[in-house]
Amino acid sequence: MDSAADGSGYQAWSEVTPDAARRLLVAAVEAFAERGYHATTTRDIAGRAGMSPAALYIHYKTKEELLHRISRIGHDKALEILETAAAGPGTAAERLDAAVRSFVGWHAAHHTTARVVQYELDALAPEHRGEIVALRRESDAAVRRIIAEGVGAGEFDVPDVPGTTLAVLSLCIDVARWFSTAGHRTPDEVGALYADLVLRMVGARPAAVPVVQK
Amino acid sequence: MDSAADGSGYQAWSEVTPDAARRLLVAAVEAFAERGYHATTTRDIAGRAGMSPAALYIHYKTKEELLHRISRIGHDKALEILETAAAGPGTAAERLDAAVRSFVGWHAAHHTTARVVQYELDALAPEHRGEIVALRRESDAAVRRIIAEGVGAGEFDVPDVPGTTLAVLSLCIDVARWFSTAGHRTPDEVGALYADLVLRMVGARPAAVPVVQK
Repeated sequence: MDSAADGSGYQAWSEVTPDAARRLLVAAVEAFAERGYHATTTRDIAGRAGMSPAALYIHYKTKEELLHRISRIGHDKALEILETAAAGPGTAAERLDAAVRSFVGWHAAHHTTARVVQYELDALAPEHRGEIVALRRESDAAVRRIIAEGVGAGEFDVPDVPGTTLAVLSLCIDVARWFSTAGHRTPDEVGALYADLVLRMVGARPAAVPVVQK
Repeated sequence: MDSAADGSGYQAWSEVTPDAARRLLVAAVEAFAERGYHATTTRDIAGRAGMSPAALYIHYKTKEELLHRISRIGHDKALEILETAAAGPGTAAERLDAAVRSFVGWHAAHHTTARVVQYELDALAPEHRGEIVALRRESDAAVRRIIAEGVGAGEFDVPDVPGTTLAVLSLCIDVARWFSTAGHRTPDEVGALYADLVLRMVGARPAAVPVVQK
């Protein structure tokens, strides 16, 4: 696993306090990614964080509470990225380009966290799963809004807006599965490639394809 | 989990004999999908198949041997689908359309198996992992060949053939993550949508977009 090399490390969880709660969360992401949620014990997580199981329980009552916290932070970040792009300035093509670049960049840079967030949904308690599914619907709506606005403005040609939205999000999310820091492409390079492919998927008129300054 | 409702059931593993070995393989797919490879014991798998642990060891020496068998059969099938499409008749657009439809169809219909095959690669023993990675490279080569031939024939406009190949396979593979038999779309409908999106990704000239008879 290359979680230490990705952005799942310490800085990415700056909103989690105190320090011990943050260390436990980082340890949980690594353990869940390596062995899966069900094969990981709270003892494993505490040990990785250099703490006792009793110290873990001060911060998290259950293993599921750790997964829920990780999933919530990951989904909040994904939604924030997509809503910022959707509400931004520019044409629909420019906003879709920005959404894809930043969403892909996040899934590449934080691929270990993203895998846990994406593959362990079934392990959440029902009430937490419902909350996360609602966040996913909002992310879907943000992308669908950009695409629908592009169609309305005559910039895009999309016969199936919900299906194309699903495919665009799926393409970006799957970056977390295959991306490796040992690979040939940087997160920014994958973002640029994918933005071009997504603009082709929506049939963006060539004149509407933006040149994005870095 | 909806493994009983997907194509991971009994018929999909007809090449596995005798009957007891096949029942154990189906039980292993279900257990790995539900709880993850590392949280599943050979005792769990034997129990699901209605057999004793001792009976399991007659057919499989280790849990890893079961995962390897599942992964090998899944990857062989994926490669067969893609190579058949690549070697088929018709234009590059027609062959790419056929490849995407059948590859997506497999990942939708067999989503439980496909999830195990895609998400548990790290759990394979090194020599088995090497064998599977080689099969994945061949699948990648089959799709890359179609795209490169389309570019050569002037049918496609693709600035980055390896990157576009990666994205096409990734888009299709991720169907296994989100597809649900409780959802609104059939595997064939997803295949048709995705074939259209992929032809857009490669910039297929409108005249080259085929009408595929079912």
